[in-house]
Amino acid sequence: MMRFSTLIRHPAEWMAGGASEQSAVITSRIRLARNLRGHSFPGWAKKGERAEALEILRPAVEGLPAMKDAFSRELGELSSVQKQVLVERHLISREHAARGDGSGAVIERRQSFSIMLNEEDHLRMQSIRSGLKLTEAYKALSELDSMLEQKVDYAFDPTLGYLTTCPTNLGTGLRASAMLHLPALVLSDQIGPVLQAVNKIGLAVRGLYGEGTESLGNLYQISNQSTLGESEETIINRLERVISQVATHEENARAKLMEDDPDMVADKIGRAYGVLRHAHIIDSKEALNHLSLLRLGGNIGFFPAESVNLCDTLLMDIQQAHLQLHAGAKLSPEARDSIRAEIVRSRLQSLDSPDIRISKNNDTDRFPEGGNPEDA
Amino acid sequence: MMRFSTLIRHPAEWMAGGASEQSAVITSRIRLARNLRGHSFPGWAKKGERAEALEILRPAVEGLPAMKDAFSRELGELSSVQKQVLVERHLISREHAARGDGSGAVIERRQSFSIMLNEEDHLRMQSIRSGLKLTEAYKALSELDSMLEQKVDYAFDPTLGYLTTCPTNLGTGLRASAMLHLPALVLSDQIGPVLQAVNKIGLAVRGLYGEGTESLGNLYQISNQSTLGESEETIINRLERVISQVATHEENARAKLMEDDPDMVADKIGRAYGVLRHAHIIDSKEALNHLSLLRLGGNIGFFPAESVNLCDTLLMDIQQAHLQLHAGAKLSPEARDSIRAEIVRSRLQSLDSPDIRISKNNDTDRFPEGGNPEDA
Repeated sequence: MMRFSTLIRHPAEWMAGGASEQSAVITSRIRLARNLRGHSFPGWAKKGERAEALEILRPAVEGLPAMKDAFSRELGELSSVQKQVLVERHLISREHAARGDGSGAVIERRQSFSIMLNEEDHLRMQSIRSGLKLTEAYKALSELDSMLEQKVDYAFDPTLGYLTTCPTNLGTGLRASAMLHLPALVLSDQIGPVLQAVNKIGLAVRGLYGEGTESLGNLYQISNQSTLGESEETIINRLERVISQVATHEENARAKLMEDDPDMVADKIGRAYGVLRHAHIIDSKEALNHLSLLRLGGNIGFFPAESVNLCDTLLMDIQQAHLQLHAGAKLSPEARDSIRAEIVRSRLQSLDSPDIRISKNNDTDRFPEGGNPEDA
Repeated sequence: MMRFSTLIRHPAEWMAGGASEQSAVITSRIRLARNLRGHSFPGWAKKGERAEALEILRPAVEGLPAMKDAFSRELGELSSVQKQVLVERHLISREHAARGDGSGAVIERRQSFSIMLNEEDHLRMQSIRSGLKLTEAYKALSELDSMLEQKVDYAFDPTLGYLTTCPTNLGTGLRASAMLHLPALVLSDQIGPVLQAVNKIGLAVRGLYGEGTESLGNLYQISNQSTLGESEETIINRLERVISQVATHEENARAKLMEDDPDMVADKIGRAYGVLRHAHIIDSKEALNHLSLLRLGGNIGFFPAESVNLCDTLLMDIQQAHLQLHAGAKLSPEARDSIRAEIVRSRLQSLDSPDIRISKNNDTDRFPEGGNPEDA
């Protein structure tokens, strides 16, 4: 049985996944919702019915080749901190973390697949990849889905498609999304119009932790809203095209900022580095926003390329449950801010001061008379 | 003739003046106001009368032994940037810098004496020393004053004492003041009551540039208000006692902060260092406030003792006129903020990351069950 600590200690595949050509896209995620035919949806199901669904699904999922030696637990076996850590890693949903016995999670060793059992639907399956790889993630998850469909009987209607608890998931049961890092669009005040355009063509934009959450660290999730009346491929292709365009806008904004106002960029990144490297108390919001600027610095060459991975790892590790897991203790908010600062300081020791060339100021008028005539 | 650049390039004696036992007192200053008998005060004098007074005083002052090879100029010979630099060094007053021909300044090589000619009074003589050395500064200036009194005829009334343009200077013509650095009293919210107490006993408290100026960088000037009806020694002794008490309050506040909330202190000093070391755009107010914290860091052992001098030098050098002198050019505010950041970054390169021990958090509750039972 894979230990929780082993799961958490190993870097996720998507993080080690090498640089994508579009550095603004951090991850691509595909989620499929499925239910068992002839079983009440989890929200309506009585305790016994939920247990029955779990008994059918868990061995089927654990038996998938991809899930060999996976991390598999009923949620009652996990502490609330452990469940919260899984939420912070986007491996289970916030709602699922509130559940206990009767619900489960099966997570592939490298965290590229994770499957929630008896969440809102009987099955919520997720595949996650680094960079803009929605098609690849979908293919992998679809294969896993097909294998599972040979073992269990899905609730499927020839007209409506896959049946789901919430009608917004009906049909394909598909949610495809990407996590984007858009600091230059934010810094250059273009983020509003860009996101509005994305919204207008029927895609959803959310903050770091999904629906209704704030955008922190210039991180945005873009996902499909409709799941019905189109094929999975059509949905994914359109989404991939739009995300690619947004990422290109971000790349252009980075180039333009560096051309128009390199001092401002160097200042923001330098200050972020300076504070992260030397603060002794830092809350998660401030840390996220500074790490976002550091990540930008890694992308545009102020820091070596490895720094991007360092930022992504830190973005995870400085979150509340991760800190408590690290400390092996319940932490007061003050203690969290202090330990967070300690972790950030020590991890950034390996990262040298930003390689920012000294700015030349051309907007100076030389004194016509040479300044100090007597010293000439 | 001493060059302006030589005067400015050499560190002032008060800056090289070694650590005082009370690190909160940066400098002590004594100023004496004197006028020539039978000559109109400068504000009332016609052009010819001002020139006449200058002709009497300038050679007399230049002939003082202390003023051998001094820097001596009529103000019309100096550019406005040069005059502003002298203001920023507290060598002439803001009002004096607005004057031109007919007024003068004679400044001792190491800047421990400076004499303004035809300021508000015919003579404004200043002596400046590092640390709390009002008596010493007064003795030195008094000696210089006596020598001058043998050469020129002062306006003196046996009942009123020395006559001055403004009645607030009448009598002794003395203003004694000290520049204090009180960051711990500010951080611990004790500064208000302390300064009120100082005010109540008839002393004045001002910001960095005298009357009506804001306190920046936790710097405060404390000086006598009354100049009449008491001897110079009485005035200075009382002032010295009060300043010493304020400095002791500051020392106590530093010790208490370090005992009560070392993390907060480390955080503030670390952030100040991080920003100064890595910012590319910084205005003078922000720089002053961060340098103030760095100076505190030097005083309480986060940085080597030399860092205090480095801060004091930077406090001078990042000011507007100093920057323009350094650049040899008129600078837009944007260019100033950029060059200021550049100077600060490069000077602080010699200053290593603060030596702040990693904080221990004792306010954590170990998980009673050991956190992750399965990993035990």
